[in-house]
Amino acid sequence: MMNRPLPSVAEVAEFQLIEFLKHQRFFNEVSDATLHHFVEQSRIKTYPKRNILFMQEDEAHHFYFIMHGWVKLFRETLDGNEAVTDILTTGHMFGVTSLFENKIYPYSAEAVESVKLVQLPISSLEEMIKSDKKLALNMLSAISRRSREQGHEIEHLSMQTAAQRLGCFLLRLCPMDSTGEVILRLPYDKTLLASRLGMKPETFSRSLKKLGEQVDLSVDGATVRIHDIEQMSHYACNACSQTFPCEAHD
Amino acid sequence: MMNRPLPSVAEVAEFQLIEFLKHQRFFNEVSDATLHHFVEQSRIKTYPKRNILFMQEDEAHHFYFIMHGWVKLFRETLDGNEAVTDILTTGHMFGVTSLFENKIYPYSAEAVESVKLVQLPISSLEEMIKSDKKLALNMLSAISRRSREQGHEIEHLSMQTAAQRLGCFLLRLCPMDSTGEVILRLPYDKTLLASRLGMKPETFSRSLKKLGEQVDLSVDGATVRIHDIEQMSHYACNACSQTFPCEAHD
Repeated sequence: MMNRPLPSVAEVAEFQLIEFLKHQRFFNEVSDATLHHFVEQSRIKTYPKRNILFMQEDEAHHFYFIMHGWVKLFRETLDGNEAVTDILTTGHMFGVTSLFENKIYPYSAEAVESVKLVQLPISSLEEMIKSDKKLALNMLSAISRRSREQGHEIEHLSMQTAAQRLGCFLLRLCPMDSTGEVILRLPYDKTLLASRLGMKPETFSRSLKKLGEQVDLSVDGATVRIHDIEQMSHYACNACSQTFPCEAHD
Repeated sequence: MMNRPLPSVAEVAEFQLIEFLKHQRFFNEVSDATLHHFVEQSRIKTYPKRNILFMQEDEAHHFYFIMHGWVKLFRETLDGNEAVTDILTTGHMFGVTSLFENKIYPYSAEAVESVKLVQLPISSLEEMIKSDKKLALNMLSAISRRSREQGHEIEHLSMQTAAQRLGCFLLRLCPMDSTGEVILRLPYDKTLLASRLGMKPETFSRSLKKLGEQVDLSVDGATVRIHDIEQMSHYACNACSQTFPCEAHD
């Protein structure tokens, strides 16, 4: 047998990168040349918890895919509060629409916990969507999907009570084929969860209490036990145009 | 002088259609062939008040531009309420993202008052975004813009009080260069306006009263007089990441 040298750290990282990118829906069926171009321009980056990745109004040089961890997107209001517009995890992408906003980030981004990201240049994206039709279509599809999710969120904020919105959030954490009892872990702390749901912490606590009065539910730290997912879905989805498992599911 | 025959009704309609479409940002700098293809496939349609244009879950054959009037997009919740996701007017387009939703409309559409629309086939859109890069980029830009507006709306629903949200809505009806006193007309009735802002009619009335206590405002039927737009902007934009005139402006 021949002795093959062990791959270098750089080679392992490049392999990881290729494997990750080629499995993203965003790169589905793009040409080898396009994928190769992005791999060459990409870097894997890790950031510690609370690290600011970029600030709203910063000039946008990069967009990102999340390999691991959670990222919070937010804007600051004039009176100094933080409007959390999204909290994203593995496989999600962010910063990409800045391409159509004069290359200015429309929000700030922060690592909720330590995160591993793929960083790609916006300039490559601009170049490649003009040369690879499939990439332009994938991007259209991704932004349409995002817009649909936002539409559901607007519907929820308009129509659901705070307790229903919390129930809906928990349902979306459940596997799509769940029946009966489900035990799940909250992905991040309750203060952030409250912000994500557009609630003040005290509204969140009241809503959790109210939800517990309406459905059989127990919460122990970050562990939530839903005793009957059908009961939860009956309660939470009633003021929504869809029911569990729904297309707003991640 | 030569006698030129008067143009036929069909010729006038086609001229109107070409003039309208070529001034839409969506068709900006597309090839003559693309524009010609769409003009050939398009029809000008008028519908009376309350006419349902399509229902959520219907198979999507067309997308639309509004030439004149107002269109309401909505979904029905399981408990039978109507979630108004958008109310659009002249120059806005709708039904277009169904291309990425298995050609199923993700919402219902209804004429708020009598409307004049341009109806275009989804099949042409699918074909043309593959053959005309500029059209694909214009569509990306349009959907990104829509997604940004939705992001602002989520922020508003999360962070603003009902009275601030109402103030924000009024500000967005004001011309962008307004200063001092502004008189404006509500574009549609208060019940619909309440739905659009995600409020029950009684919340809307309370919010209007509260807004009037905070800023100098008088309402007479559909006529609203804002006595000092700076005062209104100070009050309404405080819980927002932007101020008047903002990019959420239509």
